[in-house]
Amino acid sequence: MTVNPVGVISMFYARPFGPAHFPLFTAMRKAGMDFVELLVPEPGELDLAATRMALSETGLGVELAARVNLSRDLASDDPAAHEAGIAYLCGCVRIAAALGARRVGGPLYGAPLVFAGRMPTPVSEDVRRARVDRVVAGLRKAAVVAADHGVLLCVEPLNRFETDFCMTTRNGLDLVAQVDHPSVGVMLDTFHMAMEDDSVAGAIRMAGRHLVHFQANENHRGFIGSGHLDWNEIGRALADVGYDGPITLEPFRRNEHRLGVGLAQWRAPTEDESGRLAASAAHLRNVLALGRRSTSGVQ
Amino acid sequence: MTVNPVGVISMFYARPFGPAHFPLFTAMRKAGMDFVELLVPEPGELDLAATRMALSETGLGVELAARVNLSRDLASDDPAAHEAGIAYLCGCVRIAAALGARRVGGPLYGAPLVFAGRMPTPVSEDVRRARVDRVVAGLRKAAVVAADHGVLLCVEPLNRFETDFCMTTRNGLDLVAQVDHPSVGVMLDTFHMAMEDDSVAGAIRMAGRHLVHFQANENHRGFIGSGHLDWNEIGRALADVGYDGPITLEPFRRNEHRLGVGLAQWRAPTEDESGRLAASAAHLRNVLALGRRSTSGVQ
Repeated sequence: MTVNPVGVISMFYARPFGPAHFPLFTAMRKAGMDFVELLVPEPGELDLAATRMALSETGLGVELAARVNLSRDLASDDPAAHEAGIAYLCGCVRIAAALGARRVGGPLYGAPLVFAGRMPTPVSEDVRRARVDRVVAGLRKAAVVAADHGVLLCVEPLNRFETDFCMTTRNGLDLVAQVDHPSVGVMLDTFHMAMEDDSVAGAIRMAGRHLVHFQANENHRGFIGSGHLDWNEIGRALADVGYDGPITLEPFRRNEHRLGVGLAQWRAPTEDESGRLAASAAHLRNVLALGRRSTSGVQ
Repeated sequence: MTVNPVGVISMFYARPFGPAHFPLFTAMRKAGMDFVELLVPEPGELDLAATRMALSETGLGVELAARVNLSRDLASDDPAAHEAGIAYLCGCVRIAAALGARRVGGPLYGAPLVFAGRMPTPVSEDVRRARVDRVVAGLRKAAVVAADHGVLLCVEPLNRFETDFCMTTRNGLDLVAQVDHPSVGVMLDTFHMAMEDDSVAGAIRMAGRHLVHFQANENHRGFIGSGHLDWNEIGRALADVGYDGPITLEPFRRNEHRLGVGLAQWRAPTEDESGRLAASAAHLRNVLALGRRSTSGVQ
């Protein structure tokens, strides 16, 4: 029977995440986390050896979330930004290897939209093809380095507002098929899927064996179970495709209802949310167990 | 028994919408529409008398969708943009009266985000309060003109990426409560609700008698029934609160799955979608009828 490691994104607690936050590794363990998903540290944010030791001391695993921007962007028609995008991914792979992480996930293709202050703008078919070609070529180059280090590059479709390149599970599978490298797979995040896919569970089943990383988030990025996604159905779909990889919780929407306070930007926690985080992990493990159970009989 | 008028947004077919598109009014009627929701015409886009006559000839009702931007923005700290926001809303009211529309809906508060190329940025509590005060004051001024013309201003919460001012049903109700004017109510769009509210049906019930306009859209803005929203539950909730106002369909996500083609920007139709539009309207009318039926017995 597969048992998925369950983890939490570091920015649930703090951003940037520095050595002063290492005591949180113990809090994560207490809340039932098997691993932490760290944002790939920018230069100077984290000493890798010290981080690895702190993780090891608490028995916490680690995965990495890459951060792209317009100056490191595989999709960019600026050759410097495209090359910087490749160099960034290769650097992420080396950091993963140094920390003992198996995965580097995120919108690795680049093309950020709202968080880069870019407006949605139509592109011609020629421009579209050229962008796809650049991203595929860049991911292939980074995949060689990833394979050397035993690291998986996990391509995450976002949503129409966060990117104009890869927004649906179908887009993600298309991209991974074009890259066609065993070190590159699809990562799915139910927050984005809830916005863009016809069916969250259906998209998981469509991804099937190409699924290499998963983020379990409520429709509004609150704690799972606090919104309207069907977690039992999601658990069944993950079981149906035999997904045994990590599942990250990212409930960083705070308890914030004031008119005029935006919800897209990250904000620090304002209260102790460890109880609800622990309940989220337990809820997820239960739906996964129940999902597995449903596939043990005759279908 | 209440029967909600069902309509379609004009940009399902074309944007901008001009006199050359008047023959589409007949197509809308054939697809089962009771009304068209027109984007409020910019100067020179539509002759109001001719539009009213064309509508009348086809027996089609009309509602209006306002379009804000950074230069007409009640939330703006630029006094000229704030005043232009008020003037714009008053102009919308006059256009509504000229066309025979009862409603002007949309993000009337301003504060556009991704479609204005604005990045999510935290604001201080002082700034937040000042923005709320400006919006409330502006809506009150416009409400006086709306009342004079028998027009309702329908405040629509969007989502975290399209605005940083009013993103949830709770935000919308808060704003309407602060404005506290009978000509200002809440309008809900299930596309935004699916992203931000804990429960779409629960939010409809929370809005209750403050609900004055409704847009029925699938989670991904495709045709209703093609995604994962629970339309039977939505129909029951609309019946439970006695909503008898118009319901607009806005299925302007095209059948577009190419990697690298953004989904946020509007694009023209590429095929005849009248069959699926008609099916959407029929589906909506059925869930509304079934929802009403469910409230006729003992609960």
